[in-house]
Amino acid sequence: MNKKLYHGACLYPELWGRDVLLEDIATMKQAGINVVRIGEFAWSILEPEEGHIDISSFVEVIELLYEYGIDTVMCTPTPTPPIWLSHGHPERMYVDEHGTIMDHGARQHVCTNHPYFRKRASIIIEHIVQAVSSLPGVIAWQLDNEFKAHVAECMCRTCKELWHHWLEQHYGTIESLNEAWGTNVWSQTYQRFEQVPQPGPAPFLHNSSLRTMYQRFSMEKIAEFADEQAAIIRRYSAAPITHNSSIAFHLDNERLFQNLDFASFDTYASKDNAHAYLFNCDLWRNFKPGKNFWIMETSPSHAASLESYATPHPNGYVKAEAVAAYALGAGAFCYWLWRQQRTGSEQPHGSVVSAWGEPTIGHRQVLEVEAARKELEEILQETRPVQAEVAITYSDRAKAYLKTEPHRKLDHRGLVNEFYKRILSLGLHRDVLPEGADLDGYKLLLTPFLPYVSAEYLQRALEFTAGGGIWVVGPLTGGRTEEHTIHTDAGLGELEMLAGVKTVFTYPMDGTGSIGRAFGVSAPLSLWSTVFQPLEGGASVVGEISDGLTPGLAFLTEHRHGKGKIIMLGSMPSGEEGDQLLRQLIQHYTDEAGITVKSDVTPGTIIAPRQRADGQTLWIIINMDGHGGSVTLPCPGTDAVTGHDLPAGQVTVDAFGYKAIFWD
Amino acid sequence: MNKKLYHGACLYPELWGRDVLLEDIATMKQAGINVVRIGEFAWSILEPEEGHIDISSFVEVIELLYEYGIDTVMCTPTPTPPIWLSHGHPERMYVDEHGTIMDHGARQHVCTNHPYFRKRASIIIEHIVQAVSSLPGVIAWQLDNEFKAHVAECMCRTCKELWHHWLEQHYGTIESLNEAWGTNVWSQTYQRFEQVPQPGPAPFLHNSSLRTMYQRFSMEKIAEFADEQAAIIRRYSAAPITHNSSIAFHLDNERLFQNLDFASFDTYASKDNAHAYLFNCDLWRNFKPGKNFWIMETSPSHAASLESYATPHPNGYVKAEAVAAYALGAGAFCYWLWRQQRTGSEQPHGSVVSAWGEPTIGHRQVLEVEAARKELEEILQETRPVQAEVAITYSDRAKAYLKTEPHRKLDHRGLVNEFYKRILSLGLHRDVLPEGADLDGYKLLLTPFLPYVSAEYLQRALEFTAGGGIWVVGPLTGGRTEEHTIHTDAGLGELEMLAGVKTVFTYPMDGTGSIGRAFGVSAPLSLWSTVFQPLEGGASVVGEISDGLTPGLAFLTEHRHGKGKIIMLGSMPSGEEGDQLLRQLIQHYTDEAGITVKSDVTPGTIIAPRQRADGQTLWIIINMDGHGGSVTLPCPGTDAVTGHDLPAGQVTVDAFGYKAIFWD
Amino acid sequence: MNKKLYHGACLYPELWGRDVLLEDIATMKQAGINVVRIGEFAWSILEPEEGHIDISSFVEVIELLYEYGIDTVMCTPTPTPPIWLSHGHPERMYVDEHGTIMDHGARQHVCTNHPYFRKRASIIIEHIVQAVSSLPGVIAWQLDNEFKAHVAECMCRTCKELWHHWLEQHYGTIESLNEAWGTNVWSQTYQRFEQVPQPGPAPFLHNSSLRTMYQRFSMEKIAEFADEQAAIIRRYSAAPITHNSSIAFHLDNERLFQNLDFASFDTYASKDNAHAYLFNCDLWRNFKPGKNFWIMETSPSHAASLESYATPHPNGYVKAEAVAAYALGAGAFCYWLWRQQRTGSEQPHGSVVSAWGEPTIGHRQVLEVEAARKELEEILQETRPVQAEVAITYSDRAKAYLKTEPHRKLDHRGLVNEFYKRILSLGLHRDVLPEGADLDGYKLLLTPFLPYVSAEYLQRALEFTAGGGIWVVGPLTGGRTEEHTIHTDAGLGELEMLAGVKTVFTYPMDGTGSIGRAFGVSAPLSLWSTVFQPLEGGASVVGEISDGLTPGLAFLTEHRHGKGKIIMLGSMPSGEEGDQLLRQLIQHYTDEAGITVKSDVTPGTIIAPRQRADGQTLWIIINMDGHGGSVTLPCPGTDAVTGHDLPAGQVTVDAFGYKAIFWD
Repeated sequence: MNKKLYHGACLYPELWGRDVLLEDIATMKQAGINVVRIGEFAWSILEPEEGHIDISSFVEVIELLYEYGIDTVMCTPTPTPPIWLSHGHPERMYVDEHGTIMDHGARQHVCTNHPYFRKRASIIIEHIVQAVSSLPGVIAWQLDNEFKAHVAECMCRTCKELWHHWLEQHYGTIESLNEAWGTNVWSQTYQRFEQVPQPGPAPFLHNSSLRTMYQRFSMEKIAEFADEQAAIIRRYSAAPITHNSSIAFHLDNERLFQNLDFASFDTYASKDNAHAYLFNCDLWRNFKPGKNFWIMETSPSHAASLESYATPHPNGYVKAEAVAAYALGAGAFCYWLWRQQRTGSEQPHGSVVSAWGEPTIGHRQVLEVEAARKELEEILQETRPVQAEVAITYSDRAKAYLKTEPHRKLDHRGLVNEFYKRILSLGLHRDVLPEGADLDGYKLLLTPFLPYVSAEYLQRALEFTAGGGIWVVGPLTGGRTEEHTIHTDAGLGELEMLAGVKTVFTYPMDGTGSIGRAFGVSAPLSLWSTVFQPLEGGASVVGEISDGLTPGLAFLTEHRHGKGKIIMLGSMPSGEEGDQLLRQLIQHYTDEAGITVKSDVTPGTIIAPRQRADGQTLWIIINMDGHGGSVTLPCPGTDAVTGHDLPAGQVTVDAFGYKAIFWD
Repeated sequence: MNKKLYHGACLYPELWGRDVLLEDIATMKQAGINVVRIGEFAWSILEPEEGHIDISSFVEVIELLYEYGIDTVMCTPTPTPPIWLSHGHPERMYVDEHGTIMDHGARQHVCTNHPYFRKRASIIIEHIVQAVSSLPGVIAWQLDNEFKAHVAECMCRTCKELWHHWLEQHYGTIESLNEAWGTNVWSQTYQRFEQVPQPGPAPFLHNSSLRTMYQRFSMEKIAEFADEQAAIIRRYSAAPITHNSSIAFHLDNERLFQNLDFASFDTYASKDNAHAYLFNCDLWRNFKPGKNFWIMETSPSHAASLESYATPHPNGYVKAEAVAAYALGAGAFCYWLWRQQRTGSEQPHGSVVSAWGEPTIGHRQVLEVEAARKELEEILQETRPVQAEVAITYSDRAKAYLKTEPHRKLDHRGLVNEFYKRILSLGLHRDVLPEGADLDGYKLLLTPFLPYVSAEYLQRALEFTAGGGIWVVGPLTGGRTEEHTIHTDAGLGELEMLAGVKTVFTYPMDGTGSIGRAFGVSAPLSLWSTVFQPLEGGASVVGEISDGLTPGLAFLTEHRHGKGKIIMLGSMPSGEEGDQLLRQLIQHYTDEAGITVKSDVTPGTIIAPRQRADGQTLWIIINMDGHGGSVTLPCPGTDAVTGHDLPAGQVTVDAFGYKAIFWD
Repeated sequence: MNKKLYHGACLYPELWGRDVLLEDIATMKQAGINVVRIGEFAWSILEPEEGHIDISSFVEVIELLYEYGIDTVMCTPTPTPPIWLSHGHPERMYVDEHGTIMDHGARQHVCTNHPYFRKRASIIIEHIVQAVSSLPGVIAWQLDNEFKAHVAECMCRTCKELWHHWLEQHYGTIESLNEAWGTNVWSQTYQRFEQVPQPGPAPFLHNSSLRTMYQRFSMEKIAEFADEQAAIIRRYSAAPITHNSSIAFHLDNERLFQNLDFASFDTYASKDNAHAYLFNCDLWRNFKPGKNFWIMETSPSHAASLESYATPHPNGYVKAEAVAAYALGAGAFCYWLWRQQRTGSEQPHGSVVSAWGEPTIGHRQVLEVEAARKELEEILQETRPVQAEVAITYSDRAKAYLKTEPHRKLDHRGLVNEFYKRILSLGLHRDVLPEGADLDGYKLLLTPFLPYVSAEYLQRALEFTAGGGIWVVGPLTGGRTEEHTIHTDAGLGELEMLAGVKTVFTYPMDGTGSIGRAFGVSAPLSLWSTVFQPLEGGASVVGEISDGLTPGLAFLTEHRHGKGKIIMLGSMPSGEEGDQLLRQLIQHYTDEAGITVKSDVTPGTIIAPRQRADGQTLWIIINMDGHGGSVTLPCPGTDAVTGHDLPAGQVTVDAFGYKAIFWD
């Protein structure tokens, strides 16, 4: 699978028949498509009547594609169970938080935990794998499609029982659950596990532990479903397994990818959200370190459904996206979808070819991508992305805590991006790390918006600082226990002593007029905040508060730990001055940490640093904003495409253009 | 019924008793009211216990009214079934799209397709008709009241079964339904008709065909209910039958009026929406060509309920409304309601007399209307509205397609009005035509926002162009099949070849920076758009795109067809320049078509052209905006009211004033 | 209970154990806390298994507190029934207006009318009272907690049956209900009481009588529940009984407190809503005239839950709140809560001590309150609040009528405050009176936004005017009957003749351009309005309308009645000029009424006038806005704290400061 740099498309041969498939193969070949993804919604074609299974149509498709040099990612078709599974069986359907039972229609309408669904899923998967695993075209597997994209935690009876089992396994006795969750608080105390409700309709808010744990239960169950599917596939197939996911879904991606072979994601970010696109690349590269990630779905022009559409990408942007993805570690860049849907609910969605077989508005962009891919394939195949020195932790579990406790409608992803965007704009190469990631080799670690800091995470972070790393903690980090309760020893638990601080107060700072000053910049402070005093012989104050309710206390401290430092950021600087303060903060600790994998690239353009096995550095420079950009090449180099020598000094790229430069 | 120009009111004698009725008759006589509508909510009065039916109280009322010279429109009381029909029978109630079953209360709470409801409705209607059809006062019938005003498509079990029958009749086999709807798309494939869901709760969007067809099913069923009622009435009564409808309801008005005798509507538009009021007049005139339409309900001052109220009309506006309606073809102008409700949920609604029997804020307006009516009655009775030369197609079915696929919350009515308003402001007399209307006599036809162009419509439009007509097609017209799927031969199907164009791309243009230029005006283009290339020897480009994603392609083309032309408008010009461009477009083709039924009337004032049997032209000039206005009389004329001669040249009308002028 | 001026806190010893309790007692003693409220959510601790009741843990707590000199308000724990009461019993749960049945969780999840719940509530209450009533620390009882804070009218089956019984008791026969409600209006006519629906799902609005009466039924039922609890307590305990209520809840507070012994409220208003805080004090003082009211819950800093937080109070504000409350008649000022919640859903809520036992951001404010309390305790204990001469009627029943008929989302509380705020800003001492309050001793009475004026209220108001009082009636007062229907004799019923006016029209004035002029000020008129003509020999016009639809008619009239006057205000002046007009109106009638209990205090500062038994006047001056303020002392006085003499003339207070001055 790693022999090619893939350029792919999602295809629905089951909707069009052989003639159209041959047409599509021809146009795909012209466009340089070398892989397709098929089958994820095809259950009713493969098993039109319960137990009448016939995979041969897909076998033919895969063979035909292979004949034309196109590889296949085969999917399990579990997101769209057929009508014979759902009709007349409300007990098998997904139930939302209001108690509404889904009817057949759309997708993800069935509860993925229902035993009969699981049974039928296993059977169809086993048939598929048996039928296609030996075909040479099948290079990989995708499980299902976008788990939990349209649905969150199911509230059906099956889930209720599983929830009770899960709780019993987790807590052993109902007494320990009661204690951990503090259920005495509103006489919520349970006598038996079977009494614990799902967080459905209630007059006011459910207990935070119930809400957070039900999310974690749900995340674990969907990952177990993935594990179960993977196990069946592995019985017959050696091809690697992935799932096309997103941090927008109701998932723990880290857990999900644990037992899969490579990581993929779907993205429909617009140009104005290019940072979100890059965030994904920098995160997905780290779900399966050392392995290429895939962009399994993206639009050549625009996302759309019957009820919405995005603005089509400007010409050239898709090429910039593809080059950025490849350069940042993608093994594939695939479109959803090749041929426009004729029916259903996504007809207006961007495609490469229209329902009547003509090139679409996005087609030209696909040709540009292919030209770039060809130009860069060899260069990219002989290099690997360089590990960054700056890391920022992203956690889907943290997202769950913020969903339970959103303060004032806080958006976890947006908040983490407040830090990511500034790291990016400072020209720093960066890794976005899952909670459990290894911290070896990093110099600066940021951990914002992680309400619960696990003992394992803390241990790793302390080893990192002990070894010389600088760890920036906060805002909103560490104030909650695993059960989503408050620490009773100190505001931030054991973290405080380690950071050499004492939480004096913790309170919402918005509207109080508090000003934070650090690195010569004064800015309004915002969000739920923790304000500190250094412990005796502990931290030194880097940022002090003036005005508001707690003048003279600290919102930013630093404390030596081993060879490194723990920086506590207790509040969120806001507004234009807040932007400056945060940039200064990152710059300051970047300098102090001695970060070298960086550049002076102009905003809107990025550098993706890569390395050859022999250690030679490759810079891929990509303009993402359509205005072109430049960077200083720190040493002479060679244009990897043209072979021309380049002196040290300024290098420019055109609008949505790119350059690949080997350092001499 | 056509012997009088009616001035009417809706009356609820069942709520007040005989003394109040006599009082009301006296004040109605003073105000010139010559017709009342009664009975539409009176079921429980007429049949207080199941099967105990007594219509005599209404017979007395009708006789009493007739004695005083007031005619009656008698209603069937089906919008408000009594408690004995609904209590304890959830299976008879309306079920909304969330699956919520209605309780007794408000109105339209029962499913109009439930067989037992239908049976009881037939019985009560038959009793009413038998009792009152021979009374000389009964000049017409109204069925029910505002079908589908508060409810949309019912999701009850009865409807589910009818839906399955309807589908079976429509598609014959489940295989052809699956093929037509492309249900393979998300494994939605059905094995049997009984499995096809209603478009209720689902995790994401239902199939477009399911959504559109369920609307069409619902529209047909309510029209069948109307047919059924009409059939009962016709067994005993020769009086014409109507329904008080609106394009705001979940109906296909064209289908509904097909089997009725004359068309009526209810309107509560405010002065600032005078164009919407006129739109209704221009449309309703064409549901039953050659017959007067009725305004069955409008407020003398303001609409209101417990939870909302509109701003009362300025003094004089109701008179302008009435004159405009009469002049544009109304046979009646009726108020809702004569006496303010004492109870219920509409007590704050404007009326002519208060609950305590005094004149209301609207009373004075009613007297003004009556003065105008008297002044114009004879003039109007001896003339008929002139057919326009400009026609615009309005389709409730098209509204259903846009409800299924609203792109970005598009409002069908508002979009069609974007064209209507500009036609109006250019001083053009116009007809708003139902889809199935005859096109004879028109010179310019506009067909915007009709996603599905039926073969019958296309045939008629082609005959129209063959004969010399100019047909402007689009925006958003023709891109969907009857089943709400995408064409597979060309973006707009067979329309393209006829229009001499090829759809190059179809995509959402908002935000792409595309500029369209035509008739010397450049304007931003918007909405989901279709961009064209002329076919070899085909259309010529009238409007070309610059900037954006598709510079150089056409958004506006024209192509000769027979003696006429087909104009393709693929996109919606927007903003102030877009307004200019659209006005230029309409003006241009108006000129080219040689439109003569028009004037240079100032904005806010309208001309309603009428004709005497001998061919003499009558202009009714009405100021609708309260600022007064003027128009050039193209030839000498005679003031039809004063009999004074008028030279050719400028004629003015006062604020909310009117003039009636016979051309010499 | 009246021997101390209480400074209290809400405590949850059941959540923390004895060690933490001892810690809390120590810090409470330091902060001067002399009373705690406990037990309101402790049902599952007291009765962990059905019928296994043990109150001893609370007995110990109360004894321990008493030992340390801290009194106890003991609660009944009925807002949070245990899981054994709710699990597996959907028929016992609260059902909302959409028909959604609550699950166990949060609080108030059970229907308070369910007989089994009532039975278990009685049993646990009886056990509690028997166990603790003899303990010397127990000085008072609180019933439940914030009745109907999270829930409104329950729609369960139990309530349905009770509703039918209530209607039968109220109306005797179904015929009189039908007549009173005018159910003929949409054939809603009922044949039997058991058919009358609850106002649940319907396609459009339910009958106004149904909606209003269901609210009144619900208000009465919850008050009966309170009565039932009180009766049990009184069997064993002589301690006075209260409930911590609010006008934000779905209650009739006047009815609720009728059978209780003293009145309490919870408040979380921010500094910017200080007027709402004062409104509460001025209202709660009058629920139980002559008795101190309690502020049972307020935050030392900010209210918060998982999903929201308020801005913390500025330093000093809580002291100003406490002094204002004490001065205006409060017997206690208590915090919610002493120790931050560790678990549940209110962890972010402001407290005095954190979950880890440290002072919070609010702790300092508590110390300031205590210093002030100590300084003022003796002075306050020897004086009582002076009755005001200006009264404004507040009615929770009126709120119900506006909930049924909100016009354009009108907010009853906000509207009444439009008058209250202006009275306050004019330096007038004021009483906010429940509907049934005695009017003796008042000179000016305002009755705005009381749609239904009962015969009893009218009788009292007429006696008041007969004796010389000036009564300002309106806006929106008097236009509805008890059954929420329209009068049929006159727009405002018998009120008109008494006020010497005739309602000419009643209509929504917004957007009509109507201007009202009175007292030399012209202002736009707004809201649903009643416009008047004086009756022959009746009222004189004080405010006339120009422009709009009814120029020349009156919106403001006055008419002598006995020695006093009835002022009719038919419309709401709006905007800046409206503010002036309303202030002029109040000032004018204040002057005319000869109001003496007032001052020239600067805005943002208030005077609370009190009196010693010997008649000597005490002024407590409090700055509420943080800007300081001043007032003219009309005669020489003595600073009650320092004993210093003060000349007549200006006295100032600091930001959030206060002074207590005895007049010489």
